[in-house]
Amino acid sequence: MTDVRPSTERRPTVDLRTDGRAALDWAADYLERVGDLPVLAQVAPGDIRSRLPAHAPEEPEPFSSVLRDLDEVLLPGVTHWQHPRFFAYFATSASEPGILAELLAATLNSVGFLWRTAPASTELEGVVLNWTAKLLGLPDGWHGHIEDTASTGTMAAMIAARTTTGRDEVVCSEHTHSAVEKGARMLGMRLRKVSTDAEFRLDVNELGELSDTALVVATVGTTASASVDPVPAIADACEAAGTWLHVDAAYAGSAMVCPEFRWAFAGVQRADSLVVNPHKWLLTPMDCSLLWTSRPAELRAAFSLVPEFLRTPDAEDALSLSEYGPALGRRVRALKLWAVLRCYGRSGLQEHIRRGVALAEMFEGWVATEPGWEVCAPRHFSLVCFRLEGDDRRSRELLERVNASGEIFISHAVLDGRYVLRLAIGQMSTTEADIQLAWDVLRREARGL
Amino acid sequence: MTDVRPSTERRPTVDLRTDGRAALDWAADYLERVGDLPVLAQVAPGDIRSRLPAHAPEEPEPFSSVLRDLDEVLLPGVTHWQHPRFFAYFATSASEPGILAELLAATLNSVGFLWRTAPASTELEGVVLNWTAKLLGLPDGWHGHIEDTASTGTMAAMIAARTTTGRDEVVCSEHTHSAVEKGARMLGMRLRKVSTDAEFRLDVNELGELSDTALVVATVGTTASASVDPVPAIADACEAAGTWLHVDAAYAGSAMVCPEFRWAFAGVQRADSLVVNPHKWLLTPMDCSLLWTSRPAELRAAFSLVPEFLRTPDAEDALSLSEYGPALGRRVRALKLWAVLRCYGRSGLQEHIRRGVALAEMFEGWVATEPGWEVCAPRHFSLVCFRLEGDDRRSRELLERVNASGEIFISHAVLDGRYVLRLAIGQMSTTEADIQLAWDVLRREARGL
Repeated sequence: MTDVRPSTERRPTVDLRTDGRAALDWAADYLERVGDLPVLAQVAPGDIRSRLPAHAPEEPEPFSSVLRDLDEVLLPGVTHWQHPRFFAYFATSASEPGILAELLAATLNSVGFLWRTAPASTELEGVVLNWTAKLLGLPDGWHGHIEDTASTGTMAAMIAARTTTGRDEVVCSEHTHSAVEKGARMLGMRLRKVSTDAEFRLDVNELGELSDTALVVATVGTTASASVDPVPAIADACEAAGTWLHVDAAYAGSAMVCPEFRWAFAGVQRADSLVVNPHKWLLTPMDCSLLWTSRPAELRAAFSLVPEFLRTPDAEDALSLSEYGPALGRRVRALKLWAVLRCYGRSGLQEHIRRGVALAEMFEGWVATEPGWEVCAPRHFSLVCFRLEGDDRRSRELLERVNASGEIFISHAVLDGRYVLRLAIGQMSTTEADIQLAWDVLRREARGL
Repeated sequence: MTDVRPSTERRPTVDLRTDGRAALDWAADYLERVGDLPVLAQVAPGDIRSRLPAHAPEEPEPFSSVLRDLDEVLLPGVTHWQHPRFFAYFATSASEPGILAELLAATLNSVGFLWRTAPASTELEGVVLNWTAKLLGLPDGWHGHIEDTASTGTMAAMIAARTTTGRDEVVCSEHTHSAVEKGARMLGMRLRKVSTDAEFRLDVNELGELSDTALVVATVGTTASASVDPVPAIADACEAAGTWLHVDAAYAGSAMVCPEFRWAFAGVQRADSLVVNPHKWLLTPMDCSLLWTSRPAELRAAFSLVPEFLRTPDAEDALSLSEYGPALGRRVRALKLWAVLRCYGRSGLQEHIRRGVALAEMFEGWVATEPGWEVCAPRHFSLVCFRLEGDDRRSRELLERVNASGEIFISHAVLDGRYVLRLAIGQMSTTEADIQLAWDVLRREARGL
């Protein structure tokens, strides 16, 4: 028999206290200085790869080497999502309580595929999803759990809809997130895209026959322009046809914490399933995408598969979250959402949302009154779609110029066949001065075209 | 216009330095004392839920309240995966470098759906997967990326196989992980299970006709007994039929860092795709499941969908990892694997694997020579399948008794229709004394039956 004695004393090369202190200092320093770094990484493809060794080391290295290389090798290749002037896609924030909760979650390393493997994690997830449902004004009794991303939650809804209805068609709008098209392709479902109206909302008059439709995906806050599909009318059509209604509110759903934005969510209470991403606009680090359903029995029927090795003597009410979605293993994602909700409170979350919307409103006002510029879509939340008057080429070049400057990072969309710029506000550290600077940079670079 | 001035100064309620210090101390204390806690949470379903409030707070709470409730409310409901006597399922470890890297990843909060949104994260992931491929002795040139769990990686392989072959059947063995059955159901693919031989390996003589088969899933290290399917013979059959070969080495794959275990992986170099989970046996916190493919073009063809809002002027070689799997958004999972590989080095990883196997070998020896006990499957790695002689009832009761003691946590499987106990070693802190204690507890409780 192999002699195990020489190695029974584990000698970790990394000390959680002293190396941890250095990592923590790095994190705190990073958040303090990130605003001084270029937002968009100023590297070419392959630059970072070429600066990393081709092999893992033979012998252990100290953690200080990892921290050093994080600074010297990786940091130039980081596009800074935590930068106050990150305005691309949907700007996000990993807030301090969320960051620290991730440290704690990794320390516990609970794997929640069964209730008994992670009772606290499983029950906390249920409770925190109930808390969030109440904050957002959702109906009582919905079942919620956490998936990694909206892609997964949406795919889960598509699977549940197909299983429940026995149908194969997915209906969405031209402006629905690409995850629906990708999901349909992965699952082998047919996709039908419905045209949108002048404000980029699914045109209910074009919804057509739904009797072979497994689900309709309605969006509150589309990716391109944050437009709001007419959910009540879509819900009527789905109800009449026995079709599953999935609502994608991945970005805008967080705004429901403020009563003044609830108008946009009319009809959502009639959905069969709903996705909201706290990792987008609710201060929670990636990844934390919430999937609620008003039909938990149907979701469970689609995903429950308990093989022999996972059978336990625990009671039926010992809910196992792996029975409600695609993955079996699950880390403790609820911990960060719990920490965020507690350390911000309803009032702090509302302040974050309202600040983002107010800043967007301010920027929209500047664009609307500036000669040669135009606002290109109604602004409901914290996203402004705008462009330079004239042909697409000028706005396209402007985007490349401002992003290359490293001062701000914005992205684009195509609306009505026209190239438009998107400025999305969501970072916790963004101030009025950052928006002012963005506007200065945009006008400066436009003058140079 | 709303006056934004009052709230432009963000006042976080949580300080990353001082609250972070407290969180770090909590983490270090936890790892020091976890061995003194009951391994399996000693709570009933609903206990934790009933101790949590029904609503999120209105106003911000300090982070110290979160830490307090983590101890007082949640901890009794935690099944301790970091406990040295966690022997259930496959025992895992979140090592110190991995834990600290998760803190850093959450701080950066990079979202890697495109190369330009996270160049360092994207290129680091490629490099670290190449490092790991070399450590495991995989062929040059395979394309690797990280998924959350083996369920997702396996589903991705099934989708790629269906897209590539145009076929709909999935073939696996009776002992293949349930994720394959679940995946087939989610995707609407047909599943055929092949019987196994006396050592729980897929019986190649029963493989049958593969001309309509999209993929065969072979397993190196099955969940029940860590048996090893005959991959070379399965690869022959797949090659002849134009069928995709996916190898699930989620647990045992990590053992390939040691040359003496490579015999078990013969034929793996002929796979079309391969899953290995460093979050199982390679010291990396959940979630970190590696998916390699020898056919990157086919994987990309199955998953690439680049909508307008994600088109960038970056060169074609600016690889976007979202084109190689189901999800769009991806957090910086490579950082923890990078930190683990560097802080352990090849020698440290080998020592971890060898120690686990040596301890299992020791335990197996004790069981094999003890009257009234039997070893139930060949032991190749760090998993021992065993039982009390006699009917199933006695072993079943024994499992409940030892788990209720809180001293050790083991799980079970059914092999050849018989209920067997599983003792899996993988925790970094497990010592010979822990295995000795496990054996003492098992014999003590068996005497009390």
